[in-house]
Amino acid sequence: MSDILSKTIANIMPLDLAAMAKAKARQDTLTKPTGSLGRLEELSIQIAGIQGKALPQIKQKAVIVMAADHGVAVRGTSAYPQEVTAEMVSNFLHGGAGINVISRQAGAMVIIVDMGVAVKLDANPSLISKRIAAGTQDMSQCSAMTAAQAKQALEAGIEIVTAEVKKGLDIVATGDMGIGNTTASSAICAVMTGKTVVKVTGRGTGLDDKQLQQKIRIINEAIALNKPESSKPLEVLAKVGGFEIGGLAGVILGAAANRVPVVIDGFISGAAALIAAGLCPQSKDYMIAGHRSVEPGHQIILQHLGLRPLLDLEMRLGEGTGATLAMSLAETSVRILSEMATFAEAGVAEKGE
Amino acid sequence: MSDILSKTIANIMPLDLAAMAKAKARQDTLTKPTGSLGRLEELSIQIAGIQGKALPQIKQKAVIVMAADHGVAVRGTSAYPQEVTAEMVSNFLHGGAGINVISRQAGAMVIIVDMGVAVKLDANPSLISKRIAAGTQDMSQCSAMTAAQAKQALEAGIEIVTAEVKKGLDIVATGDMGIGNTTASSAICAVMTGKTVVKVTGRGTGLDDKQLQQKIRIINEAIALNKPESSKPLEVLAKVGGFEIGGLAGVILGAAANRVPVVIDGFISGAAALIAAGLCPQSKDYMIAGHRSVEPGHQIILQHLGLRPLLDLEMRLGEGTGATLAMSLAETSVRILSEMATFAEAGVAEKGE
Repeated sequence: MSDILSKTIANIMPLDLAAMAKAKARQDTLTKPTGSLGRLEELSIQIAGIQGKALPQIKQKAVIVMAADHGVAVRGTSAYPQEVTAEMVSNFLHGGAGINVISRQAGAMVIIVDMGVAVKLDANPSLISKRIAAGTQDMSQCSAMTAAQAKQALEAGIEIVTAEVKKGLDIVATGDMGIGNTTASSAICAVMTGKTVVKVTGRGTGLDDKQLQQKIRIINEAIALNKPESSKPLEVLAKVGGFEIGGLAGVILGAAANRVPVVIDGFISGAAALIAAGLCPQSKDYMIAGHRSVEPGHQIILQHLGLRPLLDLEMRLGEGTGATLAMSLAETSVRILSEMATFAEAGVAEKGE
Repeated sequence: MSDILSKTIANIMPLDLAAMAKAKARQDTLTKPTGSLGRLEELSIQIAGIQGKALPQIKQKAVIVMAADHGVAVRGTSAYPQEVTAEMVSNFLHGGAGINVISRQAGAMVIIVDMGVAVKLDANPSLISKRIAAGTQDMSQCSAMTAAQAKQALEAGIEIVTAEVKKGLDIVATGDMGIGNTTASSAICAVMTGKTVVKVTGRGTGLDDKQLQQKIRIINEAIALNKPESSKPLEVLAKVGGFEIGGLAGVILGAAANRVPVVIDGFISGAAALIAAGLCPQSKDYMIAGHRSVEPGHQIILQHLGLRPLLDLEMRLGEGTGATLAMSLAETSVRILSEMATFAEAGVAEKGE
């Protein structure tokens, strides 16, 4: 048990209850009725517990967007052709995608990672290559990847987030790009939560009724063929997952091991969170659910993980867009804790008896 | 009909449908599945219609926080003593309140207005005085204010927002401070929506069960005594309203007349929105519901106005905190419309057939 993955999991500790108690006590002295900032108060207390500081700080923010392709896409499970994965990576690098705009507004860095895009991408100083293969295999025909590749994906995510934490990262959001990745995520969701494929599968980027039925059939085939077991999350990732999903699960575990809050985006990031929580249930305490996606399986994932989303804006873009919007709320919550005056400081009378 | 209020209402025009159609058409060319940014897309289209520009802009942002006292507070309808209104105004001026922190994070200016605080406040260059009286009268004994005072409050709000628009304001949020103002807002809500006082009255800053029953009884007394009619919104404001509520209704009407989007905060701002919509139903199109407050009457107001809140974070602080958080979402939505690359610009393949 001396490899990176095992060491990372072993380093994920419970939240710092003393820091949380201090943060809660301070919230109750600030110039507002007790609890009147609702979930922002809870969020600041959670982040205090994660960072292990009564007055947590969020200055450096980043979203890690991991891209990869999916062999199963050849079976027509997406409304878009597979080359869009590489084209969107290029769009990310040029600053024209939704995540770029939202990150500029949030003051967050965008870290783009090639985990295994089918088309070979040109080298670019802004692109991190952790390329495992030119996309996964078709999970309806065989295992999507080998067990070694699944571990490689997780460790790539751990390495990337750990390197950023060493440079001062205070909070991280997860993001994804990969044509066909709602198919893999639905498979992971069905296996890890025990729900039927029908319940957890949605229209992704915009399938019609017939295409949706075909997608459900293919996912059922993949599960019947590979027989993944929920008690073996690494095996689930290998059999029906994706390289970017494994990478994001690694980001989550790596963030937790480094006591950094991780804001989970929508359905694909949620599938990564299921793998991370399966490998280390303690990691759930480090997760902040950024938003509720309209993809139906996402709500099932949130319930399974016991997470309540901060935003519910009917989004389903991925890329980390919902998580990065929510990162601003996390930053606001800790600024409230640090910057608001107490009743005593401001000379404001407290609640009457 | 040549007074400020009537002229303002006459200047509130329908949204610019041509600008909205262009904004919608552009959303559908941006590098994302159609509609995948959900409510952010809708919001950008609404703002296009409000500003009358296919590519709306939000740069200068402000929250207008109006403070006033309520005569009815002598009957113990709030958990806090009345002097807290003035103390919190001082806290706003020193930058220590929740709204100050949230506005710093959002990059929004905080405009603080004395509409009629009971304690006379020291002059301060950062405080706008539109003081009508040292608080309203006790609405359970007589009319809260005269008809002339109600009109004065509305026109003060119109003047303040119009002056800011002349200086370049692109969007405005509404905020309130006033011990006892959930009592007045519940009365307005009951009258304007036709719901019972029991249904629209909550615990405000934190009443216990007995105090809540007393608050409901006092509101019923005030309505029975004053007999306000929903068809006469100015009379409703005068009989059971508050100076800051009237001022905020003026801000809403003034923003609409100037084609500026107005982000409505929680319950008190919602009561102001009921008065504004009663005076000019067209003004509803200019409103953006910032958040859903936990105060039970707020949901009833939102339904009555046909507004869906952007945020639902279990907040109930007022001051414009929920609206100012949501103002950042509005800014993000218009940046997405302007800054995202189109499929053609980015060389990304569109949805397959």
